Amino acid sequence: MDPLEAVGPAPDLVSDVFARACTSRAAFEDVTSRWSSLALLALGEGPHRFGELRRRVEGVSERMLAQTLRALERDGLITRSDAGTIPPRVDYALTPLGAQVAAGLRGLADVLESAVPEIDRARLDYDAR
Amino acid sequence: MDPLEAVGPAPDLVSDVFARACTSRAAFEDVTSRWSSLALLALGEGPHRFGELRRRVEGVSERMLAQTLRALERDGLITRSDAGTIPPRVDYALTPLGAQVAAGLRGLADVLESAVPEIDRARLDYDAR
Repeated sequence: MDPLEAVGPAPDLVSDVFARACTSRAAFEDVTSRWSSLALLALGEGPHRFGELRRRVEGVSERMLAQTLRALERDGLITRSDAGTIPPRVDYALTPLGAQVAAGLRGLADVLESAVPEIDRARLDYDAR
Repeated sequence: MDPLEAVGPAPDLVSDVFARACTSRAAFEDVTSRWSSLALLALGEGPHRFGELRRRVEGVSERMLAQTLRALERDGLITRSDAGTIPPRVDYALTPLGAQVAAGLRGLADVLESAVPEIDRARLDYDAR
């Protein structure tokens, strides 16, 4: 059965992020992809407008950010609310599930931010071999 | 200053995963890339030989797995030990830093594995709009 057509696995199936056919693997790839993970981290700091996100996530193009946000909305991780005004005002925010994911990514980012000296040293050692 | 040349940031600099020039951003991208994250999750279950990892991480090619493991070793997240025997036996294991990262990824994977029904429903709703 195509996982996109299923509303949840059968009760005797276990979700497995290693299994190519599992929804959780596709979702794991969605949230860990380069721009998604940074967009989720930014939204973990609070709702953002499109332009604010674009500035926060250094290096992302308008097109990639739009594509990233659509994928996250489709997975139920963020909401998009259009105020319907001119000029347009569109706000993005985390859903409760998105907030759980963003908290996990924040934990990971904290570990790596603290480990910068250790990682730099490991790279120097590796490159010097 | 090229972050690869620095042994840690100057004390007045703050590591920031959003900053393109920060080591933590490159490391964050390394650990969250498709195959790295799954390889770290697998190694979170214990040391693995190359062939074991290849089977655990469904869909990875031999070349991509080798490249992924080199990048993780360079970042100081995993160790590679070659028993020097014939046939060759090479074992991969997490370093303490790699174990911290793998635990974070496992938390993220747990959230997504539990959320499969919710994600499937969100996708159906989105596609039906």
